[in-house]
Amino acid sequence: MDRKVWKLARRPVGDIADGDLELVSEAIPDLAEGQFLLAVIYLSLDPTNRIWMSDMEQYMPPVELGAPMRAGVCGRVVASRKAGVEPGQIMAGLGEWADHIVSDGSFMSPLPQLPGVSLAATYGTLALVGPTAYFGLMDIGQPKPGETLVVSAAAGGVGQIVGQIGKIKGCRVIGIAGGKAKCDYVVNELGFDACIDYKHEDVGAALDRLCPDGIDINFEQVGGPIMVEVLKRMKTFGRVPLCGLISGYNAIDAVEEPGFWTMILMRRLTIRGFIVTDFAPRFGESGAALAGWMLGGQLQTRQDIRPGLENAVATVRELYTGGNFGKLLIQVSDY
Amino acid sequence: MDRKVWKLARRPVGDIADGDLELVSEAIPDLAEGQFLLAVIYLSLDPTNRIWMSDMEQYMPPVELGAPMRAGVCGRVVASRKAGVEPGQIMAGLGEWADHIVSDGSFMSPLPQLPGVSLAATYGTLALVGPTAYFGLMDIGQPKPGETLVVSAAAGGVGQIVGQIGKIKGCRVIGIAGGKAKCDYVVNELGFDACIDYKHEDVGAALDRLCPDGIDINFEQVGGPIMVEVLKRMKTFGRVPLCGLISGYNAIDAVEEPGFWTMILMRRLTIRGFIVTDFAPRFGESGAALAGWMLGGQLQTRQDIRPGLENAVATVRELYTGGNFGKLLIQVSDY
Repeated sequence: MDRKVWKLARRPVGDIADGDLELVSEAIPDLAEGQFLLAVIYLSLDPTNRIWMSDMEQYMPPVELGAPMRAGVCGRVVASRKAGVEPGQIMAGLGEWADHIVSDGSFMSPLPQLPGVSLAATYGTLALVGPTAYFGLMDIGQPKPGETLVVSAAAGGVGQIVGQIGKIKGCRVIGIAGGKAKCDYVVNELGFDACIDYKHEDVGAALDRLCPDGIDINFEQVGGPIMVEVLKRMKTFGRVPLCGLISGYNAIDAVEEPGFWTMILMRRLTIRGFIVTDFAPRFGESGAALAGWMLGGQLQTRQDIRPGLENAVATVRELYTGGNFGKLLIQVSDY
Repeated sequence: MDRKVWKLARRPVGDIADGDLELVSEAIPDLAEGQFLLAVIYLSLDPTNRIWMSDMEQYMPPVELGAPMRAGVCGRVVASRKAGVEPGQIMAGLGEWADHIVSDGSFMSPLPQLPGVSLAATYGTLALVGPTAYFGLMDIGQPKPGETLVVSAAAGGVGQIVGQIGKIKGCRVIGIAGGKAKCDYVVNELGFDACIDYKHEDVGAALDRLCPDGIDINFEQVGGPIMVEVLKRMKTFGRVPLCGLISGYNAIDAVEEPGFWTMILMRRLTIRGFIVTDFAPRFGESGAALAGWMLGGQLQTRQDIRPGLENAVATVRELYTGGNFGKLLIQVSDY
């Protein structure tokens, strides 16, 4: 039996080009003792994919040239030689851009099924992006009632959850997103207090209007000039969970934004970078909190589901131009 | 009765110039109910003095033009109309560049007398710089045995204490200081593992040699190119207590160093600015720890004591050229 898998043919220079990844068919090897075969249902496309394709400094080894492209995946076990893993089980974890994956269970765990919640919403929330939002905001952001929280990429996979947790914790939440539809969604559907449309508004002026007393927490995902405008308005003892810098991931000659060192000192800011896997020992805590909020109707999430593994390259590119609206997933096979 | 006091005549531009501050004589007002009169023994000169003279963004209001220059002081009560404050008591806190100060007790508290320790060492350690070193290193740096700690301005008031606490906590401690005498002192007298003489060594190359596996904690006091070299070598999960940026305080057109945003994200660094007064509710904790280490012979400190209030301007300038060796104090009157 064959599988289809995207392999990294060359490292992208700037935007991801056709030919940087190649979709190939190859035989699925027989399962060894301790392995299982997963039929991928959803492939998670995330900003960090572009980092993994590069050889820039990063938090895991880059994907090697010629190797399958790495990704978060969710699928159904179709065969198993691993104790405790049964055919039919839904598993989620770190996999490949492929329709079938052979796994030994590393970085892979059963996905709980929430009653009345779709698999896409369960996977798109409880797996990587939910814990990212939860630990970044709760551990680093430390939200307190009445504080002002700014969330960039507000309608994206992580941002939509960050803002809703902020509201649950009593913050004033200001999103930043591209376009009226996304801004309307986070305000009208998710309950954000306001959202700045960076494509049509002067972000600095809008922040001055919406955050006249400054910003306590900047959940940073974007970097670049938008980050600079937010940082300028941080309040004393402000916190910056640094989750991503997507605006620079496709840059060929990246220039670091200024360090704001004097401001960090004078306003006693905390800047802390994090990756969700740093919190892996505490995923039980985040899973329980997120599931509870989802089942209690306090947390809703939007998935942007696109069909077909063959469209993975064209689809992942949209992350870097703001083309996605909600957590971006590829539907590789039916549930 | 008159007092002598330095008043801020104009805000320095670049280096502190003669005439930026003026030494004047003025009558000491009669004490009101709740006030006491302090004869200043030691005036503490600190890097932050230059900030207070300016109108740059800062963590307290700048000293107003025409007002007495602000400073940490230690003195003896000579008259009191405040309950609980008796003539003869030694008090330390926030005061003025003056030989006598009228205080209502705000930001002023009794200085404990440590047996066998001079008043200069007690004041120069237990008052501002000791808590600065303690909270910056312990709360933000979070030193663990076997970790590598780099301390800039290693022979200065704060740096010498940071390095010794680092050794008490089991760290490898690398100092950075200007000149052989200071480097020899922190290694041979204070037990640092090594010290880089930034005036005569390539700091980057020395860090590569002394910290081949990278740096866990950078206790930052200096900023500028030395900070950049240290930051480049931070390890994953490294911490940067940001205590000062003295290299830029006299700059006329300050340029922020790059932000290292990508590195902060990928290595999951924590950068946190702090001011010692943020920890005022916990000064009891730092005082007990510091006094215990001093009396136990684990913490020794050097004071650089200069005579005469009239020399305050010439003396404070030395902080910005590395002219001091240890905690810089002016002896205003005899103990």
